[in-house]
Amino acid sequence: MSYDDNNIFAKILRGEMPAHKIFEDDQTFAFLDIMPRSKGHTLVIPKKPSVNMMDIDPDTLCTLIRSVHRLAPLVRKAMAADGFVIQQFNEAAAGQMVFHTHFHIVPRYAGVALKHAASEMENEDVLSTTAELIKSEVDKQLS
Amino acid sequence: MSYDDNNIFAKILRGEMPAHKIFEDDQTFAFLDIMPRSKGHTLVIPKKPSVNMMDIDPDTLCTLIRSVHRLAPLVRKAMAADGFVIQQFNEAAAGQMVFHTHFHIVPRYAGVALKHAASEMENEDVLSTTAELIKSEVDKQLS
Repeated sequence: MSYDDNNIFAKILRGEMPAHKIFEDDQTFAFLDIMPRSKGHTLVIPKKPSVNMMDIDPDTLCTLIRSVHRLAPLVRKAMAADGFVIQQFNEAAAGQMVFHTHFHIVPRYAGVALKHAASEMENEDVLSTTAELIKSEVDKQLS
Repeated sequence: MSYDDNNIFAKILRGEMPAHKIFEDDQTFAFLDIMPRSKGHTLVIPKKPSVNMMDIDPDTLCTLIRSVHRLAPLVRKAMAADGFVIQQFNEAAAGQMVFHTHFHIVPRYAGVALKHAASEMENEDVLSTTAELIKSEVDKQLS
């Protein structure tokens, strides 16, 4: 599959679509999933275009996982979560819906089941409040 | 949580427990999950001890994800899968069951649902045949 410049994450990176941003550096960008599987569900993407693990270059992948690694414990702390799952989907058969490489950080809370993927749009106010909460933890630790 | 040297993956790395190995290099080791969520479900672990994303060092993580990145398309090809999911669990509340950092490569097949995590032990013969299939693809590409 070749990369489509009009996928929704490419539009977010170009500022053509809004996003609840929590972090950005030279090579990566992180924002909230608008259909979260749990409170604080965050996506981390590379700025360099790639579809998924089949075409991403190793250096970009390393930079990307480093951002995931820096952010996930901060998401966990901000949300007072008990753990988190890192997920990354490759191809439609695996549940990939946006064809720009992305890692999910899904906070887990003891005794709380995950919602089904992409099952329910979160309220804008909840997303804004959640993004502020995580962003303030990120700014405190990574600034 | 501190690292427990007696976890099952530490024992596999020391050769004290058997495993259906598909790949090994200086820093990483890959083998089949004995309770696969789909055919070809593979685990990739660092040789250096760490519990999960909370304590792994960034260089080890980068080396680990590079092995995942090299192996996942080969697992997919060997199994003729339609896609794959990369997963990594942190803490018991998130479903982590072995407390040595590990990435799951879970092949996906169109129209085939995943089994529940750790729900069913696979037959030894099936695991051996699957490991040989993947290992021959890995040996062809990475030797």
